Amino acid sequence: MSLRHALLALLEAGPMTGYELAKQFDQSADRVWHAPHPQIYTELRKLEGEGLVAADEQPRGTKAVKRAYRLNPDGERELRRWVSELEAPQQVRDAAYLKATYFEYAEPATVRRHFERHRAHHEEQLQRWERHVAQLQARETELLQRRLAHASESDHEAIVAYKVHVYQGMAERARTEIEWAERGLDLVDKLTS
Amino acid sequence: MSLRHALLALLEAGPMTGYELAKQFDQSADRVWHAPHPQIYTELRKLEGEGLVAADEQPRGTKAVKRAYRLNPDGERELRRWVSELEAPQQVRDAAYLKATYFEYAEPATVRRHFERHRAHHEEQLQRWERHVAQLQARETELLQRRLAHASESDHEAIVAYKVHVYQGMAERARTEIEWAERGLDLVDKLTS
Repeated sequence: MSLRHALLALLEAGPMTGYELAKQFDQSADRVWHAPHPQIYTELRKLEGEGLVAADEQPRGTKAVKRAYRLNPDGERELRRWVSELEAPQQVRDAAYLKATYFEYAEPATVRRHFERHRAHHEEQLQRWERHVAQLQARETELLQRRLAHASESDHEAIVAYKVHVYQGMAERARTEIEWAERGLDLVDKLTS
Repeated sequence: MSLRHALLALLEAGPMTGYELAKQFDQSADRVWHAPHPQIYTELRKLEGEGLVAADEQPRGTKAVKRAYRLNPDGERELRRWVSELEAPQQVRDAAYLKATYFEYAEPATVRRHFERHRAHHEEQLQRWERHVAQLQARETELLQRRLAHASESDHEAIVAYKVHVYQGMAERARTEIEWAERGLDLVDKLTS
C-alpha cells in the first residue's frame, strides 16, 4: 500500500491534475517505488472515494474541464500517520541474484555478459542518483520548490536533507552492485584460467 | 516467474517430496526469492502438469504413499535456458526508502526509531549471510552436498564459488544498509542539534 502514500506525499507539494501527478511521480517516487500509470489513476480515484484527496474542476480551454486534485485534511493526517509507522522489513525477491546462484549451468561467456549487464545497469543508475542528489542539493527540482514555497523556513533543511539522504543511499546501493559485478567478472576469470 | 526456476534448481540436487522441497527452499532460495509454501506447492503441480518434473510414488508406512518429485530432461533444459537468459533489470520498490523521503513529517524520535530498526534488521541479515557463506565454503549444507555428489569433480569449484559470491553480495548489501542507517542517525542528530 505504499503507492497511495507516495501519491499523498506528491500532492502535499500542491494541487495537480492526474496527468501532472503521474509525470511528477515518474520523476521522483517512481525511482524508489515503481508503479505504472494505470495503477496511479486507479489509486487516485480510490483516494478520492475515501475522501483523502478532493478534486476541483477547472476550465480547460472553452469547452472542457480539468480536474485538479488536492490533499484533504484527512489525507494529510494519513500521510503523517504512514510516515511515523514503522515499516516491516521487506522480503527479498531478486531475480539476478537468484540466477547467479546457479551460474555453473551457463557458459562462462554468458556469465560474463550477465555480470557486464548488471554493472552497466547500475553505472547508469548511479549517474541518475548522483544527478538527482545534485539537483536536490541545489533545490532545483520543481516538486521541491513547490514544497519549500509553502513550508515553514525552519523545516527547509530537513525537507531537503531527507531526500538527499535517500538518493545518496540509492547511489551507495548502485556502487555496491557495481562492485559485486566486478568481483563476479574476476571470479569468471579465475574459474576459467 | 523466478519461483519455478528456483524449484527446478533445487530438484537438480536430487528428488524430494513437496515437503522436503519447501523445507530446502526456506533454507536457500527463499533468502533471495521469497515465496510462501502454498505458492511453492501450486507451482510444483504446474511444473508436473507441464512435464518439467515427474513424481514417483513411494510407500510411507504401510498404508500411505508419498510423492517424490524429480527433474525431467525437459526441466533440466528449461533450467539451463533460464540461467543463460539475460535478466531485465528489476524495478525498485522499496517501502523503507520511499518513507524516508518524507521523514520531515515525523517526529525526530520516530525517525531515529526507523533508522535503528533498519540497522538492527540488516545487522541480523548480515550475520545470517556470513554464516551461510561460511557453511557453503566448508561445503556443509545438505543441498550443496547432494549437488556435489552427482556433479563432475571439475565443476565443484564453480558450483561452490557462485553460491558464495551471491551470499557475499547479500552480506555487502546488508553492510551498505547498516551504513545508510548510521548516516541517517547522524543526520537526525545534526537536524535536531
